[in-house]
Amino acid sequence: MKTTDNLETLRARLAEFAAERDWEQFHNPKNLAMALAGETGELLEHFQWLTFEQAAHLPHDARAEVALEAADVLLFLVRLCDKLDIDLAAACDKKLALNAKKYPVDKSRGKATKYDKL
Amino acid sequence: MKTTDNLETLRARLAEFAAERDWEQFHNPKNLAMALAGETGELLEHFQWLTFEQAAHLPHDARAEVALEAADVLLFLVRLCDKLDIDLAAACDKKLALNAKKYPVDKSRGKATKYDKL
Amino acid sequence: MKTTDNLETLRARLAEFAAERDWEQFHNPKNLAMALAGETGELLEHFQWLTFEQAAHLPHDARAEVALEAADVLLFLVRLCDKLDIDLAAACDKKLALNAKKYPVDKSRGKATKYDKL
Amino acid sequence: MKTTDNLETLRARLAEFAAERDWEQFHNPKNLAMALAGETGELLEHFQWLTFEQAAHLPHDARAEVALEAADVLLFLVRLCDKLDIDLAAACDKKLALNAKKYPVDKSRGKATKYDKL
Repeated sequence: MKTTDNLETLRARLAEFAAERDWEQFHNPKNLAMALAGETGELLEHFQWLTFEQAAHLPHDARAEVALEAADVLLFLVRLCDKLDIDLAAACDKKLALNAKKYPVDKSRGKATKYDKL
Repeated sequence: MKTTDNLETLRARLAEFAAERDWEQFHNPKNLAMALAGETGELLEHFQWLTFEQAAHLPHDARAEVALEAADVLLFLVRLCDKLDIDLAAACDKKLALNAKKYPVDKSRGKATKYDKL
Repeated sequence: MKTTDNLETLRARLAEFAAERDWEQFHNPKNLAMALAGETGELLEHFQWLTFEQAAHLPHDARAEVALEAADVLLFLVRLCDKLDIDLAAACDKKLALNAKKYPVDKSRGKATKYDKL
Repeated sequence: MKTTDNLETLRARLAEFAAERDWEQFHNPKNLAMALAGETGELLEHFQWLTFEQAAHLPHDARAEVALEAADVLLFLVRLCDKLDIDLAAACDKKLALNAKKYPVDKSRGKATKYDKL
């Protein structure tokens, strides 16, 4: 079975994975938020001493490792949202709409300024 | 346009969003990894003083805020993978296969032990 | 030489350690902030699946590992402040004074509420 | 009362601050590790879109904000170690000794390579 690029499929696979292992007891949202942050920290460590140039051109091996760390982040994020009954895709739609308002093209072009200081 | 639950659609929307604003210059993987970690930290803060019971039953408003933080995490993660030319869905498939090997059902049932200590 | 519990001594030792290894070139504040976050992530991972009871009574080995992670956090924090010319002890004094104002004893007793919602 | 640059003084002040507010109940190590990670995330966010040049020369206001975030990190770290009965200064001494072994001057000079790949 493939994730076929789909958050709902991924959610279902992770729920099954946890249920088979009786891991529901550990998958409280508090724990999952911590696990998510831990994985993000691991991902971050790959980049901490790199120049921008190096970060944009990771060697093949490093890129493969980063890909697996990125997957870990997504897996815990999807699992967290599942346990909180959050529709992650809908939340992304909502956030993208908010971002479009907060960062109008003409005011934010070429600037990394946070919206409240634009 | 909706994300329709699909990582590739999301990737394309974020690429367009950044291109329209001339944000490519800021979206180096190093910066995006930092932004990802920052958003994860914000998500984490919602849970830091909660009991497990409270974390599992967020009030409506808190849940809506967490949903938007979760979206932020996914948006930066998808953008990061795009800039690194990482196929996030494929990485998830690979990681899930690895996890199934590292955590065989019979050895890991009911345990939060890390695979290397199972 | 011992740190003798003193931030200034620690700062000086770390500066010397970096200088001897010609690491100044890597110790840009951006990189050090990332390294700090990476170490915090490692510390966090020790606690992610624990109950409150377990977290408050770590086994001896786990506690020794957490102690070294905590040290890593402090080392990068002190180094970061040094490179930014921030007096960390003075910043703590200032922050403690701010916290005393934001969290008056009578209003905050027994509550984990953030100051802006007290 | 000043911290006078001393971890033990800081520890004692924070213990008193928490006791006065009856916050012991919230200061489980699991919660404190999360709070620490949350603060580190806030610190990180100050640097995420900056060039190395900008990060090394923060404007006055940004530097003052970063100083307070750095203080928050230290406050939670010291509090966490207190609750775990970890002697943070001793852990730093131990870690510095370990680092000196893992990164001998002649092998690590001018390299950001992790010790296990030196």
